[in-house]
Amino acid sequence: MRPNRLGDAPPQFVDPSGFRQLRALVGRERITRAIEDRVCHSYDGTKQRALPDVVIWPDSTDHVAGVLAYANEREWPVYVRGAATGLSGGAVPLYGGIVMDMTRMNRISRIDASNLMAEVEPGVVTGQFQRRVEELGLFYPPDPASAEYSTVGGNVAECAGGLRGLKYGVTKHYVLGLEVVLADGSVLNTGARTLKNVTGYDLTQLLVGSEGTLGVITKILLKLIPLPLRLRTMMAFFHSAAEASDTALEIVAQRVLPRALEFMDRRSIKSVRDYASADIPRKTDALLLVEVDGTDESTKQEVERAVAACEKGGAFRVRVAETEAEREEQWSIRRAFSPALFTLAPLKLNEDVCVPRSEVTKLLRFVTRAGTGRPVTVACFGHIGDGNIHVNLLYEPGQEDEVKSIADGIFREVVRLGGTLSGEHGIGTSKAPFLEIELPPAQIEIMKSLKRLFDPKGILNPGKIFPDEFSRARRESRAILPAGP
Amino acid sequence: MRPNRLGDAPPQFVDPSGFRQLRALVGRERITRAIEDRVCHSYDGTKQRALPDVVIWPDSTDHVAGVLAYANEREWPVYVRGAATGLSGGAVPLYGGIVMDMTRMNRISRIDASNLMAEVEPGVVTGQFQRRVEELGLFYPPDPASAEYSTVGGNVAECAGGLRGLKYGVTKHYVLGLEVVLADGSVLNTGARTLKNVTGYDLTQLLVGSEGTLGVITKILLKLIPLPLRLRTMMAFFHSAAEASDTALEIVAQRVLPRALEFMDRRSIKSVRDYASADIPRKTDALLLVEVDGTDESTKQEVERAVAACEKGGAFRVRVAETEAEREEQWSIRRAFSPALFTLAPLKLNEDVCVPRSEVTKLLRFVTRAGTGRPVTVACFGHIGDGNIHVNLLYEPGQEDEVKSIADGIFREVVRLGGTLSGEHGIGTSKAPFLEIELPPAQIEIMKSLKRLFDPKGILNPGKIFPDEFSRARRESRAILPAGP
Repeated sequence: MRPNRLGDAPPQFVDPSGFRQLRALVGRERITRAIEDRVCHSYDGTKQRALPDVVIWPDSTDHVAGVLAYANEREWPVYVRGAATGLSGGAVPLYGGIVMDMTRMNRISRIDASNLMAEVEPGVVTGQFQRRVEELGLFYPPDPASAEYSTVGGNVAECAGGLRGLKYGVTKHYVLGLEVVLADGSVLNTGARTLKNVTGYDLTQLLVGSEGTLGVITKILLKLIPLPLRLRTMMAFFHSAAEASDTALEIVAQRVLPRALEFMDRRSIKSVRDYASADIPRKTDALLLVEVDGTDESTKQEVERAVAACEKGGAFRVRVAETEAEREEQWSIRRAFSPALFTLAPLKLNEDVCVPRSEVTKLLRFVTRAGTGRPVTVACFGHIGDGNIHVNLLYEPGQEDEVKSIADGIFREVVRLGGTLSGEHGIGTSKAPFLEIELPPAQIEIMKSLKRLFDPKGILNPGKIFPDEFSRARRESRAILPAGP
Repeated sequence: MRPNRLGDAPPQFVDPSGFRQLRALVGRERITRAIEDRVCHSYDGTKQRALPDVVIWPDSTDHVAGVLAYANEREWPVYVRGAATGLSGGAVPLYGGIVMDMTRMNRISRIDASNLMAEVEPGVVTGQFQRRVEELGLFYPPDPASAEYSTVGGNVAECAGGLRGLKYGVTKHYVLGLEVVLADGSVLNTGARTLKNVTGYDLTQLLVGSEGTLGVITKILLKLIPLPLRLRTMMAFFHSAAEASDTALEIVAQRVLPRALEFMDRRSIKSVRDYASADIPRKTDALLLVEVDGTDESTKQEVERAVAACEKGGAFRVRVAETEAEREEQWSIRRAFSPALFTLAPLKLNEDVCVPRSEVTKLLRFVTRAGTGRPVTVACFGHIGDGNIHVNLLYEPGQEDEVKSIADGIFREVVRLGGTLSGEHGIGTSKAPFLEIELPPAQIEIMKSLKRLFDPKGILNPGKIFPDEFSRARRESRAILPAGP
């Protein structure tokens, strides 16, 4: 099978009779084969594109189960997406077939304050959910940068991370149970409404972060915690990246566990200054954004310790936000980084490598060297508190090979430093070619066996993580392949 | 296959030639077939017993790999144990064969304060590890009651919980990576030295809590956090269990997340008063032990809110520990509960069911009724903060059927309330007969498929979780069975 490219307008799998059958399953208003809908569902947060045959908006677990049972029988690819903000190609319908857009399953079924739990459908927008629980004095910490758009289902499928990983962990730490439809259309309920559960193997955590390759999530049981009473925010400016990253280590060594500990390097700062006229001192080569939460008193003490660590670490200026407006200004600088980088070049490869925090300085040095003398611009920012640095390679059209070679070198260094290819974006298509840098063949083989166990025909999100699995499944089933592109 | 009973002294699997081969693999000083060693390794924290053929104390991953490859070839059962303090029969060598005692692999290989991580061998005693990291200002929160004896490896295999689940989670939340030897002797490394990691499926979490049925843990990479600066402890006395359990809910509703929130009912209190002459007011029918941690100021505020919640909830007395001696006295009461119960009857079935916190009052009422008019005494205490209540059935020899019938009823009620059979002890042999009360056949089937994937011959901890898997594996391989007992 060759991936489906945009422009291959004829459906690859879903013929007119199949379309009628799917329509009968979900209802006329929940399916389309209009080219404009297919195009709108052909891409995600990466620049990759592939055209699906049909788009379905299921509205219930029954719809999902019906579509999967039908598609599995026919061995048609099924691609599930939330808001498709992902940065690893997870939602791109690489081989065509069916896209299931889960955004209509967006009910917050229950917020259970007594038990600090919530049950939601996968299409709930994460930011909306966060605000709803915060109104009740509760807190759902996972906070990917996409939270205003991305869905809880997508976050769970990718095990989204975000800013609060150091103190509060990531999405998986808040998932207590799932309702999942398996490839054959059967429904599986994992977990329980409890904080502790060791009954059988932990299928919940196997499914979290499986990138839509093992099942389709239709309900999510989430853990909540009490909302911290007080936030305090500060920003520190340094002459060098090494000073800033060493200081990040020192802050934690002072027993301060910030809810956010963000880093930006010289290139990122320059672009944000140009893009958003941000008030950042001219001589700044790196900065840290630190936010702590707790009680009024504890946050005060923690900010004092963090300020002292920054000054000791060489910060030439430290600004503690005294008002909500000042806090908002500091965060607006952080938020501007990702879009601002496009002022440097039209194309961006955003890697989300993660290394032990103590190795960040080495990683930054390596990455800077990797870009030196090459036409590609390297800019780094991100979650230094948990070692999850966004290494951005900015480039012009035609430089793809150069970028791939630099990325390959960075991945090898990351693994050498004890890190991992992806901290929070997932493998998808973007990092699939590099998987073997980190995982030995035996481990990949176990993962593929798990994939086959859950999805013997390989219909779920084919082409992702293990790109060869779809072709293998189809070879083994000796299915008659539709005409390729 | 029938389980091996104590008294079946002849080895079931390991013949003299096999013993010599195993001895050549690990060295003379690391293997025994002496009857006294076999008896000492025949039981765990439950009253179950079965005699192994040999006991091996591996000292390296190579030893473990060599033994497993050899045993797998011959389809001999392998039982792995740490301190064997488990309460679900996880370490009992049910079918005989090889016991691997991991307590000699007890090195703390590294405590990495910069990255808040540690690497340990499985035989490290949890309490010793806790103290080592606390000396460095770090904190490893998982705290099973057995911590002074049990090993980190055993805790990981069972996903041990303990007192701090509500605020800090359980063992799985601190496991970042594992080195595991699979049934065939191959070595698998999962995870990375990072706080975020979404590269491929989460094999680490699949292995945590798998009760020694999927692989043998030989190294553990753990996450640490900064040690909280201050503790404050208090005890509140109530006229009824319902008042106490409703107050536990209210404390959390007041945004206090205690590091310990423990409950004891009337029977438990009576036995501890008799056993340890504890200073508990006579009219007490239930009590709560509350401990908070944080800064000096934050803990002060939290204790104030918790005291107010207790008084509002009907506590007729509240004691805040003002000195370390007073704190120690409150904890000594808590620690006495488990041994004190044996003053009520010689035999004890300790269940560790877990329900949503809001359902604890209903559970306690049901459990009390379940014991009424029957010769069995029911006493409850435990981790009310996370809904993980230890329901103890105290009975005389000969009452096993009665106890089993009461337990069956309790498990059904627990599942009806949205809970789970086991919060922290595991399924093992004790709860295996009840598994179908909670998990539908399809889910059990998926779990069995995972078992077969990792351990096709079923040699790892046979007879646990899915008791029929060992016989099935042997039937399928048409191995010649040794003479049964």
